[in-house]
Amino acid sequence: MGLPSDSGIELWSKWPAGPRDLITDVPGVKVGHVTIQDGEVNTGLTAVLPHGGDLFLDKVMAAQVSLNGFGKSAGLLQIEELGTIETPILMTNTLSVGTALTGLVRYMLEGHPDIGVTTGTVNCVVTECNDGHLNDIRGLHVREEHVRQAIEGASEDFAEGAVGGGTGMCCLGLKGGIGSASRVLKIDGGDYTVGALVMANFGSAGNLVIGGRHVGREIQRQKEAEKDQGSIILLIATDIPLSERQLKRVARRASISLGRTGSFMGNGSGDIAIAFTTANRVPHYSRTDILPLRMFFDENIDMVFEAAVEAMEEAILSALYHGETTTGVRGNTVRGLRSYQLEEAGR
Amino acid sequence: MGLPSDSGIELWSKWPAGPRDLITDVPGVKVGHVTIQDGEVNTGLTAVLPHGGDLFLDKVMAAQVSLNGFGKSAGLLQIEELGTIETPILMTNTLSVGTALTGLVRYMLEGHPDIGVTTGTVNCVVTECNDGHLNDIRGLHVREEHVRQAIEGASEDFAEGAVGGGTGMCCLGLKGGIGSASRVLKIDGGDYTVGALVMANFGSAGNLVIGGRHVGREIQRQKEAEKDQGSIILLIATDIPLSERQLKRVARRASISLGRTGSFMGNGSGDIAIAFTTANRVPHYSRTDILPLRMFFDENIDMVFEAAVEAMEEAILSALYHGETTTGVRGNTVRGLRSYQLEEAGR
Amino acid sequence: MGLPSDSGIELWSKWPAGPRDLITDVPGVKVGHVTIQDGEVNTGLTAVLPHGGDLFLDKVMAAQVSLNGFGKSAGLLQIEELGTIETPILMTNTLSVGTALTGLVRYMLEGHPDIGVTTGTVNCVVTECNDGHLNDIRGLHVREEHVRQAIEGASEDFAEGAVGGGTGMCCLGLKGGIGSASRVLKIDGGDYTVGALVMANFGSAGNLVIGGRHVGREIQRQKEAEKDQGSIILLIATDIPLSERQLKRVARRASISLGRTGSFMGNGSGDIAIAFTTANRVPHYSRTDILPLRMFFDENIDMVFEAAVEAMEEAILSALYHGETTTGVRGNTVRGLRSYQLEEAGR
Amino acid sequence: MGLPSDSGIELWSKWPAGPRDLITDVPGVKVGHVTIQDGEVNTGLTAVLPHGGDLFLDKVMAAQVSLNGFGKSAGLLQIEELGTIETPILMTNTLSVGTALTGLVRYMLEGHPDIGVTTGTVNCVVTECNDGHLNDIRGLHVREEHVRQAIEGASEDFAEGAVGGGTGMCCLGLKGGIGSASRVLKIDGGDYTVGALVMANFGSAGNLVIGGRHVGREIQRQKEAEKDQGSIILLIATDIPLSERQLKRVARRASISLGRTGSFMGNGSGDIAIAFTTANRVPHYSRTDILPLRMFFDENIDMVFEAAVEAMEEAILSALYHGETTTGVRGNTVRGLRSYQLEEAGR
Repeated sequence: MGLPSDSGIELWSKWPAGPRDLITDVPGVKVGHVTIQDGEVNTGLTAVLPHGGDLFLDKVMAAQVSLNGFGKSAGLLQIEELGTIETPILMTNTLSVGTALTGLVRYMLEGHPDIGVTTGTVNCVVTECNDGHLNDIRGLHVREEHVRQAIEGASEDFAEGAVGGGTGMCCLGLKGGIGSASRVLKIDGGDYTVGALVMANFGSAGNLVIGGRHVGREIQRQKEAEKDQGSIILLIATDIPLSERQLKRVARRASISLGRTGSFMGNGSGDIAIAFTTANRVPHYSRTDILPLRMFFDENIDMVFEAAVEAMEEAILSALYHGETTTGVRGNTVRGLRSYQLEEAGR
Repeated sequence: MGLPSDSGIELWSKWPAGPRDLITDVPGVKVGHVTIQDGEVNTGLTAVLPHGGDLFLDKVMAAQVSLNGFGKSAGLLQIEELGTIETPILMTNTLSVGTALTGLVRYMLEGHPDIGVTTGTVNCVVTECNDGHLNDIRGLHVREEHVRQAIEGASEDFAEGAVGGGTGMCCLGLKGGIGSASRVLKIDGGDYTVGALVMANFGSAGNLVIGGRHVGREIQRQKEAEKDQGSIILLIATDIPLSERQLKRVARRASISLGRTGSFMGNGSGDIAIAFTTANRVPHYSRTDILPLRMFFDENIDMVFEAAVEAMEEAILSALYHGETTTGVRGNTVRGLRSYQLEEAGR
Repeated sequence: MGLPSDSGIELWSKWPAGPRDLITDVPGVKVGHVTIQDGEVNTGLTAVLPHGGDLFLDKVMAAQVSLNGFGKSAGLLQIEELGTIETPILMTNTLSVGTALTGLVRYMLEGHPDIGVTTGTVNCVVTECNDGHLNDIRGLHVREEHVRQAIEGASEDFAEGAVGGGTGMCCLGLKGGIGSASRVLKIDGGDYTVGALVMANFGSAGNLVIGGRHVGREIQRQKEAEKDQGSIILLIATDIPLSERQLKRVARRASISLGRTGSFMGNGSGDIAIAFTTANRVPHYSRTDILPLRMFFDENIDMVFEAAVEAMEEAILSALYHGETTTGVRGNTVRGLRSYQLEEAGR
Repeated sequence: MGLPSDSGIELWSKWPAGPRDLITDVPGVKVGHVTIQDGEVNTGLTAVLPHGGDLFLDKVMAAQVSLNGFGKSAGLLQIEELGTIETPILMTNTLSVGTALTGLVRYMLEGHPDIGVTTGTVNCVVTECNDGHLNDIRGLHVREEHVRQAIEGASEDFAEGAVGGGTGMCCLGLKGGIGSASRVLKIDGGDYTVGALVMANFGSAGNLVIGGRHVGREIQRQKEAEKDQGSIILLIATDIPLSERQLKRVARRASISLGRTGSFMGNGSGDIAIAFTTANRVPHYSRTDILPLRMFFDENIDMVFEAAVEAMEEAILSALYHGETTTGVRGNTVRGLRSYQLEEAGR
């Protein structure tokens, strides 16, 4: 739902949000969570499905950018080379990437008896942040079967905040997690959507900025300082026809959204942005060698950049807005944004 | 001088500025301007000298990042490959890169009879932004001899605003140009400096942010809207020993400073950041193959990142602060920031 | 003409050459040379025109790769960001890049009164190698007017060897220069061409390999050893519809052609590959934001890779084959390949 | 042992091999294999240990290059950002990356109770090729405990060919697998080593080149043609002090070794090179922020490039030389190089 209208947070938005104000406003996109919580365990898995069909046979065009590569995500290399995503995109904790990867491999193998026999292998995308402050991350509590659960439970409506991969995440000294938002653009007479979903786990307490207000200063007065740590995964989905190069340009603007909310891309922050479009599909099997494609006129692409920046900024703040105070491993407690008495947070 | 204390602009700074609040607070760095103004002509050349010695024989370690590569700068390729800068760094208008390049080649040849005979060639660094809104850019008014003038006139004190390469630049709907600032850090018990100098020519009128305040909205009310255009060159100088990889990490943080001041890295903006350190030198001739070097402990590098972000943010705003209202080609007038009646611009 | 059938050089080719065995077998491509020779002066300029229309209004899709960035080429940055080439591609000596750039800027300004006034600037592509061994490179003998000459003299038939930008170039201890070749592929029932043109100036005498034979060993026996120096610019043109990402993949294969002919991409070698397709055009002005495009099915792209590798390998050897013994600055003489008594050079 | 002197294969080597002609000639480097073979199962795991100490506390400086990113290796992103390797490097089959990753995570957690609690996480490096032609890759036969086995079994002497991660690999239509070689250089009066280890799984039958001879043509006459598939992982180890940038330059030369042996970096080939030096160490904990480092004088680095190219070329051919004819899944049989009656393969 992004930021509700009564959130008290006012951002400068040039474009309207879509009906759900979620990444799923992009037709076909679905999101599923598995939340794993039990005392010291606060972790989980989120799956983003770029479309409802067979992703391996009908890949979406995609690009990725490593804004700060202190990260352990898997599957990015091949996105870069081939410009496609052919599996759901998973988000989980850093030490569970291997398990999620194997779970996703098994899921893809089941549906595709040709993989590893008559065709090549499959490039599974698994992203991560470190939830070790609230989660017993050393316990490796994500299991392979959670992958199927997250994928099969995916839908157009989904929760934000401390859920799925975001269950144990912290952001800017507050409870972080999953956030999402969208923007709608008019292009060549039609409506198109740019959606964002983030797993927000970055930043230090003093730095939070909301709509230009340095809210972090106030928060820091009410709590102990902490080191900047953690990471953020930013997904951008759209139905605007963009080329791989253009998707990369959009993904690179994630640093602007980070700058607007108080990040300086700290050393230990694995800041990864992935963008895909459902409007350019690449088949796994093709009868012809030459395939049709569409791209955007770069001269006018600024509106796409700005809409993506806005959606990512709102998605980050939405993750904070929805994050509930959570106590986890070693008794660590992280408060949600709404638990603070703040002056009106925006303008 | 960066932003003077009575500027009315208040930023969130964690680190103090150096004595000049200029890039020249980094020992050895000098800056020279040639300003070319005559009716429709509003352009020029700025030279940054990384140190006062022979740069070709005693190169500084360096890195560069193209945040948005809609630009025509020359010499970046070899910085990337060899990690060094071996000439002064020039800043001028887009269509004068060739002339400045030839001027710099001639300057380097004169001082080094070995170039092109017993040793290889020389990598001249020339950066640019498009000043065509105020300058008769098609007239190619920069001449080769201006290069020598800018270099030989370089000193530790230099003007900001509409001078040198910044003479005809516009930024966020206001008069832009050259701005500079610095920050001082305590490292291993010693004082080190991070300095920034920008040639600011980016952004659209409505987007200016100063210390978190969306000042651009107000400015836009007082003037006509314009398209986001132009570019920015951001230089970071330091005497902290950083490796090429670390200099690149610092340069990449320029996008945060851009995000903080209202840029979303528009399509047409050639946003280039170059960072160098005077603390790691690479000789052109060496008796030994193995050379000593120093790097920074990445785990603690956040303070360098933040100081660089702060210095670049202040440098951008300082360019605006010092920019005087200017009328140029085709009667175009661009007002300086201080010509606007703004509520207190910071907090 | 590439390698003539009676050259005695036999390569392993899977695909046939086009009718000219030149880059101009790609319909629309033209090449022009200006050769500047006078005693100690051995230099020049080569212009490659991607098509015969207005390149600024009707850009070709392109990509570039820096295999080893010890180079001073201009204009590559924007190719990377926007994926297009909008001017002829020039090739000249290292220290003349500035002059050629200014010459090309003037040429483009003349034809386009909108540049720098109602539209932005223009990205001029100028590549270079160091011809200082045979040319008085410090004399800067290339002049701005040579640019127009090279462009206006361009045609589908052109000379190879010590001409144009290649006049003073050396390669693998032999006279190098301009070489070209092509390959024809059958795709979806139609004929398509991959053409290559190189300015070859790389490698050390002992390393030449021709069709797998280590010919360099023999050459080295007949002359003094020299240090590996110089560079190579490799252009690939095609009328196969490739995306920017795919053009980059093709360009990256240039290292294979280099490996096959005896390069190890030496430190001082600026090895730059640029690929463009005439089959995907990007307009400067457009009424619609969404543009049609075509790409290639990556799964079958190997034939494009191999054809490009073959064409570039042959183009390098063709540069050597056509290179005549030349005496230049400081009395330096470099012998052409055909001046050596070699056993049959191929198989 | 690399290629034995009686192999009949003669390469052009400028530098002598080390005593073992293996990557372990670099002091401290060890290699361990787990070979998993049982009817349709032909797979395994290879671990390369950069030094014998605690890699997490005492990281080696490193760089990586994706020559062709059709691959699923994990851990490369952080090598790029931080320039270090902090775990053993694993090599296995494509679909087992997740399992190997989790096994390596567990191994690292055991030795380091601080990971995920008082310090951040750990970046595990797992590389892969597709062994599906000989191995029941869909069966996921690599298990987590194999990781510990491979690491704990590592030593300075190790087998080449169809062992460890190379058990089921094919290369250029022949049995591929693990190969290794080394070269010794004299630098500043001392002896230094460049070692290479490859997991070779690339290329199509007709393309094999050995010492310049197009041996593949002959092999193809004796067998059916096959599509180019598979990948190659190339490791370069050295005790020469190189910076991260220089290690990347060395890694990038892997494409030359590939070109020399018959690869054109086919579409489906994940060609990844990783280079590390044991001579520049980066501590996990440090009392000071400024750390000493050493780099190489780039002007003389060609010998390092060439030695690396030679070692990688020999390592590839050594993988082929040691590969024994193997029958695997679906009855597929792949013959070893030595099973062919070839004319003398080198010169």
